[in-house]
Amino acid sequence: MTSALDRLDEQDLLDLSVGCTVLAGGGGGDPRIGVLMALGAIRRTGPVPLVALDDLDPDDLVIPAGMIGAPTVMVEKIPHGREGDVIRAAYEARLGRPVAALMPMEMGGINGVLPVAWAAIAGLPLVDGDLMGRAFPELQMCTPHLYDIPVSPLVVVDERSQVMTFETMDNIWGERLARNAVSRLGGCACAGLYPMDARTAATPMLAGTVSRAVHIGRTIRQAGDDPFRALDDTVGLYPLLTGKVLDVDRRTAGGFVRGSAVIEGTEKDAGRLVRLEFQNENLVAMEDGEALATVPDIITLLDRHTAHGIVTEHIRYGQRVVIGVFRAPDQWRSERGLATVGPRAFGYDIDYVPVEDRHARVG
Amino acid sequence: MTSALDRLDEQDLLDLSVGCTVLAGGGGGDPRIGVLMALGAIRRTGPVPLVALDDLDPDDLVIPAGMIGAPTVMVEKIPHGREGDVIRAAYEARLGRPVAALMPMEMGGINGVLPVAWAAIAGLPLVDGDLMGRAFPELQMCTPHLYDIPVSPLVVVDERSQVMTFETMDNIWGERLARNAVSRLGGCACAGLYPMDARTAATPMLAGTVSRAVHIGRTIRQAGDDPFRALDDTVGLYPLLTGKVLDVDRRTAGGFVRGSAVIEGTEKDAGRLVRLEFQNENLVAMEDGEALATVPDIITLLDRHTAHGIVTEHIRYGQRVVIGVFRAPDQWRSERGLATVGPRAFGYDIDYVPVEDRHARVG
Repeated sequence: MTSALDRLDEQDLLDLSVGCTVLAGGGGGDPRIGVLMALGAIRRTGPVPLVALDDLDPDDLVIPAGMIGAPTVMVEKIPHGREGDVIRAAYEARLGRPVAALMPMEMGGINGVLPVAWAAIAGLPLVDGDLMGRAFPELQMCTPHLYDIPVSPLVVVDERSQVMTFETMDNIWGERLARNAVSRLGGCACAGLYPMDARTAATPMLAGTVSRAVHIGRTIRQAGDDPFRALDDTVGLYPLLTGKVLDVDRRTAGGFVRGSAVIEGTEKDAGRLVRLEFQNENLVAMEDGEALATVPDIITLLDRHTAHGIVTEHIRYGQRVVIGVFRAPDQWRSERGLATVGPRAFGYDIDYVPVEDRHARVG
Repeated sequence: MTSALDRLDEQDLLDLSVGCTVLAGGGGGDPRIGVLMALGAIRRTGPVPLVALDDLDPDDLVIPAGMIGAPTVMVEKIPHGREGDVIRAAYEARLGRPVAALMPMEMGGINGVLPVAWAAIAGLPLVDGDLMGRAFPELQMCTPHLYDIPVSPLVVVDERSQVMTFETMDNIWGERLARNAVSRLGGCACAGLYPMDARTAATPMLAGTVSRAVHIGRTIRQAGDDPFRALDDTVGLYPLLTGKVLDVDRRTAGGFVRGSAVIEGTEKDAGRLVRLEFQNENLVAMEDGEALATVPDIITLLDRHTAHGIVTEHIRYGQRVVIGVFRAPDQWRSERGLATVGPRAFGYDIDYVPVEDRHARVG
């Protein structure tokens, strides 16, 4: 087990951002801008307190937050940094009570680090946990949805501080309306969603995932020559293929980036071809028409040398990579979890097979 | 001058709906469903009180409201009737103060009568006035926009009681975001916009327009053989052409209906062809490549026999019609008014010429 941190300093942030690329499954957005914002913020405000739900009053209001939309757009349409404040103000106005803490909505890409900046600037603690344990592309793909906790009021803000609030009893409609707004706003925006008191959040929340992501980043940094073995020791890595990127096809539309990448095997995998298909996140890895791995397991393209994760918008021809898979959090492996984020939820007529039933770990 | 009414009974409602088709300029939506809802509501609650702003406390909160989107969709995607309550609740939650009265956002089509139903069901008075003095297709085309009064918070609700709140300092962005949401909701929805206290509303509001529309409807009903002369006596009618509908082309997309209708002259106008072009409302009347009339003057297709207005979604081949034009309210004839709703605001490179400078009245 990872020991929980109680605050995030500058080195933690850098480690967190690396851990978030690994857990992202290709999505969540390039963390670079988020790290720079968070570093800038904590240099002014000091380290951000990281709290467990138990540290809060059960009635305290916690707001999960992050960027939503197409990661390809996030790299050039950047937040102004005060979105945490704007989101907080919108919830306080709507719900008539103070926000006690922010929480990352997902633990992947920019969305693991940007909430650190927002918390620092808003003067709020950050909860050590998230609602996915990885990244997923749609708003109903958050653990509270499995317990019928409403995504509403759902707050979307943009870099002009325009604020949109969506209230619906149907989380799928929440996704639909927010995605539609984000698309009109240029392809990405920032959001608060699933407002919960600490008592309610305790059931769905994946606890300790911020600390875990920091730990992953630290492990890789300190691993020396074999970061893959270190990663395996830390979180369990199932490598599918070592190879290089042969082709990549990306289309940004409707508030998502969709496409595929073909990886050609090298070294011991010479002669093999594996195709990754993605909607923000990598959904399936296919070889000869068969699925090697699928959501909800975390399929991440890892740099062949550093073991850092490569987000889908940065996949390039010729990159040397390892396709790595990590076990999905158990909540996603339940019947309702699979109905929400399993292969069929993304239109693939494929049964989910847990990665550990099909592949071996590094060791 | 029209004498102001202090309440609306069943006959007033029927007259109001006819007046609204005349003032609509082809838009605002078929009033039929709105009249039925309003009749049903006042049969339960009694006549709706009609108030002037002077009857309210200057600090009282007034909410203009109506349907927005494509009138072609409104005839089949109908409101549930309690939207006034939902809009009121959304504003009271957001602004933390009670709503004192509703007001029609525009005086055309369904939007002149539906707010009567909403006011009855919400137990609120209706203000005798509106923000257009006719109907226009876009949300910045309301008189408060001429005085930099914000459209925000802008509330959109649908028949599932889903509530969307848009907050922006830019009224054009308010239109853009709301239209985008309405398009996703299927092409039409209901909205509250330009929330104002009575003191603020006094400057932009076009006062007495509900009474005026009732008066127009009553005049037509009581006119006997020559409703056109009666209409002229009441509001000043500039007839462009007597004829029949030869062709109509309508496309519903992006939350609007756009298209054109060609009217072939008959009787004294035999041999002439006039084309109306519309975006929800009729924008220009063209003959031989020259504009006969343009927005902001009110261009309405009137039934040749009854003088009732024909909304764009009900234009049919063979209808016998008179193209009638009415003077725009003075606020729209100012420099800023024309920049907002003149021909160039709709993409026509045409100078506005007041209808009375180019055409004669019935008399």
